[in-house]
Amino acid sequence: MSPRPDQPSRQRTGRRPGNPETREAILAAARAAFAERGYDATPIRAVAAAAGVDPALVHHYFGAKEELFRAAMAIPIDPAELVPRVLAGGAGEVGERLVRTFLAVWDSPVGAAAVALLRSAVSNQWTARLLREFLTTQILRRVLDQLDLDPAEAPLRGALVATQIAGLAMMRYVIRLEPVASASPDTLAATIGPTVQRYLTGPLEAS
Amino acid sequence: MSPRPDQPSRQRTGRRPGNPETREAILAAARAAFAERGYDATPIRAVAAAAGVDPALVHHYFGAKEELFRAAMAIPIDPAELVPRVLAGGAGEVGERLVRTFLAVWDSPVGAAAVALLRSAVSNQWTARLLREFLTTQILRRVLDQLDLDPAEAPLRGALVATQIAGLAMMRYVIRLEPVASASPDTLAATIGPTVQRYLTGPLEAS
Repeated sequence: MSPRPDQPSRQRTGRRPGNPETREAILAAARAAFAERGYDATPIRAVAAAAGVDPALVHHYFGAKEELFRAAMAIPIDPAELVPRVLAGGAGEVGERLVRTFLAVWDSPVGAAAVALLRSAVSNQWTARLLREFLTTQILRRVLDQLDLDPAEAPLRGALVATQIAGLAMMRYVIRLEPVASASPDTLAATIGPTVQRYLTGPLEAS
Repeated sequence: MSPRPDQPSRQRTGRRPGNPETREAILAAARAAFAERGYDATPIRAVAAAAGVDPALVHHYFGAKEELFRAAMAIPIDPAELVPRVLAGGAGEVGERLVRTFLAVWDSPVGAAAVALLRSAVSNQWTARLLREFLTTQILRRVLDQLDLDPAEAPLRGALVATQIAGLAMMRYVIRLEPVASASPDTLAATIGPTVQRYLTGPLEAS
């Protein structure tokens, strides 16, 4: 997944933080560009130009575009690492594993940031666009690519999964509706997993 | 459902609006009480006392407690009327009909208020509590009562439905994730209806 196979991902996280003001200027420019143009249509050099720095500096501070995107949104997980883990072990139980993986991230210390992002996306149109870009290009596209789905159905399947997962996050962490708020990951994986599984690989409409 | 069978619901909607300041004081007191104590534990007389008016005046302006609750949250639909309509025609297609009913409300002119409520609930802990009370006491309780479900499973079934419906609202109206944002009600009822159906009446866990 990395465009630079000579630089393994462990090393990348040791990237030098750089000048805090320059760094923040780059992140602000990235947020604006990703929200306005979308992830795919935003080249690193446009972000660099908006921040008034050399593109090489953006690469030096943040690495590849997807890492810049995660840094700009303060997203503490790496979908490039997480998604393959969810999909490992065959497509038959991907629904349950996807629910378990999301719960593991949200229930962990970094989960607060994910919930904050969800809150912010709901009240702020700009963050909503960023979250949509993130979902589409960093998570759903990866999942759908690896499952080898009918391209005509794949976008709807991905978006349906997003409705169920986002609603689970909302009811469990934001609205705190019982018994979903305190249910065990096992219960939620067993009950919601089959929904995600059908959205991804099952017949889309009832027969 | 009405505690006063002598007063049919058509007549009630013609209720006199009353003094705007008194009316607003009652609504503010109702919002505070419902959020703090919950719907069930809030008697009309507590709202009246907090607003400094006679309980009879609250009844006179707003009618029964459930109508006061809807007025306090500016909820433009009447679950007491809507829920039986969803459940009419047998339990076998209730999932599809529930999705269609929600979409019809949200896609209508009053839908903007429902989406605003969802946004507010996500960013404001107080509105979140009110929305949770509304979901639980005004919608889910009615649906679950009429479906004659195993009481041990009913709360989880209701909360699971809420995760799917809230997530659909979020992705379609707030995040505007395609193709769910522009999908027809037919497509969404056909694809998401079976999920709601399983949460309500199907086996909860995959066999």
